[in-house]
Amino acid sequence: MAKMNLKPLGDRVIVKPITEEERTKSGIVLPDTAEKERPEQGEVIAVGPGKRMEDGKRAPMEVKKGDRVVFTKYSPNEVEIDDVEYLILKEDDVLAIIEK
Amino acid sequence: MAKMNLKPLGDRVIVKPITEEERTKSGIVLPDTAEKERPEQGEVIAVGPGKRMEDGKRAPMEVKKGDRVVFTKYSPNEVEIDDVEYLILKEDDVLAIIEK
Amino acid sequence: MAKMNLKPLGDRVIVKPITEEERTKSGIVLPDTAEKERPEQGEVIAVGPGKRMEDGKRAPMEVKKGDRVVFTKYSPNEVEIDDVEYLILKEDDVLAIIEK
Amino acid sequence: MAKMNLKPLGDRVIVKPITEEERTKSGIVLPDTAEKERPEQGEVIAVGPGKRMEDGKRAPMEVKKGDRVVFTKYSPNEVEIDDVEYLILKEDDVLAIIEK
Amino acid sequence: MAKMNLKPLGDRVIVKPITEEERTKSGIVLPDTAEKERPEQGEVIAVGPGKRMEDGKRAPMEVKKGDRVVFTKYSPNEVEIDDVEYLILKEDDVLAIIEK
Amino acid sequence: MAKMNLKPLGDRVIVKPITEEERTKSGIVLPDTAEKERPEQGEVIAVGPGKRMEDGKRAPMEVKKGDRVVFTKYSPNEVEIDDVEYLILKEDDVLAIIEK
Amino acid sequence: MAKMNLKPLGDRVIVKPITEEERTKSGIVLPDTAEKERPEQGEVIAVGPGKRMEDGKRAPMEVKKGDRVVFTKYSPNEVEIDDVEYLILKEDDVLAIIEK
Repeated sequence: MAKMNLKPLGDRVIVKPITEEERTKSGIVLPDTAEKERPEQGEVIAVGPGKRMEDGKRAPMEVKKGDRVVFTKYSPNEVEIDDVEYLILKEDDVLAIIEK
Repeated sequence: MAKMNLKPLGDRVIVKPITEEERTKSGIVLPDTAEKERPEQGEVIAVGPGKRMEDGKRAPMEVKKGDRVVFTKYSPNEVEIDDVEYLILKEDDVLAIIEK
Repeated sequence: MAKMNLKPLGDRVIVKPITEEERTKSGIVLPDTAEKERPEQGEVIAVGPGKRMEDGKRAPMEVKKGDRVVFTKYSPNEVEIDDVEYLILKEDDVLAIIEK
Repeated sequence: MAKMNLKPLGDRVIVKPITEEERTKSGIVLPDTAEKERPEQGEVIAVGPGKRMEDGKRAPMEVKKGDRVVFTKYSPNEVEIDDVEYLILKEDDVLAIIEK
Repeated sequence: MAKMNLKPLGDRVIVKPITEEERTKSGIVLPDTAEKERPEQGEVIAVGPGKRMEDGKRAPMEVKKGDRVVFTKYSPNEVEIDDVEYLILKEDDVLAIIEK
Repeated sequence: MAKMNLKPLGDRVIVKPITEEERTKSGIVLPDTAEKERPEQGEVIAVGPGKRMEDGKRAPMEVKKGDRVVFTKYSPNEVEIDDVEYLILKEDDVLAIIEK
Repeated sequence: MAKMNLKPLGDRVIVKPITEEERTKSGIVLPDTAEKERPEQGEVIAVGPGKRMEDGKRAPMEVKKGDRVVFTKYSPNEVEIDDVEYLILKEDDVLAIIEK
């Protein structure tokens, strides 16, 4: 994989979606639904410094680089680097971490 | 039941919906209505660390693993693991705990 | 009446709607209107621990078990236990307590 | 007038609308408009304990029992007690007090 | 002018709209536009005690009785006292004070 | 230019839009777009005392009288004084100051 | 490039979009989608002093002049200076910094 040179701002995370084959191996299936906002799987590639709270401090991120996650694709911010597709999400769009 | 390897973030909970047969045994019936957002029953499989408050601390979760709950299925985040369907909800979508 | 085994979360209350006959006896009539959100009468069967404030504490509930109340049925969360219909409401949907 | 036995919650007030005849005597006319939300006159019959602030305390009510008020009928929560119609409002729907 | 006996609540103000003739004299013209929310001129007749802040105190009002103001008529709360039309506004609907 | 006798409230500013000729001289062009909310240029004629914060203090204004600004005309509050058109805006509608 | 004489207010940033040719060189492609809000690349030309927090202080900006960024063009505030197009954005519309 090419070196990721995107540094997310705030509580954003950059996620690389997982291909169908990889998904099948994990045993976790995210069923196709009529709903346009359905959960997907991906790998966290980079995380921002965290959301700034009202007191000026940042809330620490719950996900970290390398985490395998289930997320909901609310805002389709797609970026393509060297022919690989990435998504830039808010951490709140990440539903759960898949533990290994 | 397969070991759950999903760790919810924030105030999210993972719930396994209860089948019609199990529902009948509990004596609790959630009537079918025209409303698309009707309450359902389920078992809590995993809970997140709690919602972060403005002061940076987390509010403790009210539900815990193993709780039988009534919830409203607002945001249909369905995940299927080894052919079992799970839902990822916000704790605020959980209406009540069914005491044994 | 069957023992209620539902424990509401947060600032939710479980209410048993009052039948037409009982309503007439109380002298309080809630007129039928074209509005779909009209007030109803009921008896509080169970109350949650209270809404969590920003400082982490819970605001005490204003209603208690046994209160006869007037409420507005915004979110139709109906549950049926042993053929009796209950509603799960937010305390803010309760407009007033009927004093005896 | 029958004894009012409704105790409003939070910052709610119970108001008895004033009849056309009484309105004319006061010299204040609330013109009929095409707007469905037009101000009305009424007498405050009961007031709640006040809205709970973020610090857990209650903001004192600005209106009190017996006040003649101008209010806007946003949320038509009508209750009929012994053939008399009452309205349950939020204090914020009360625009002004008519001083005697 | 008849004595105003309406006491506004919170951050509300009572304004007497200025007639076309008076407007022309002031040199300020508020052009007719297709927008339904266009600014108008008026005289402040009464002011409320101020909006309550989260700490329980009231923010002092910026306008005072006698001020000539430009306001936007968002919420058409019209009251007629002895054949004179008044408007009850939130202070935030007042855009500017016309200095003499 | 006639003396401006309008004193804006809160965080409002009064702006005199710049004519097409003046605009061309500045080298800054605000292209016509299909979007109805496009930026415009103007001169700040008067500023309010600043927005009141939750602690009761006012946030100081970023713009001052005489500033040449780029703003977005969200809320078309137009006032005409001695045949000159002015706009009353919230400071947040001002995007940038044009430095001389 | 002409000297930028626009000083953004609050947490706004002025961005110069990057041309198709420059984009290709960076290896980052932002795919055309049906979505009207798709990420773009640009160079930060000027930054505001930061968003004012509730305590009156300003949150420091995360981006600085010269940063190459990926942003979402929510609010199309375009300005043209000496035939060069610039965009005025809120910092929150900036998704990530492209590290060199």
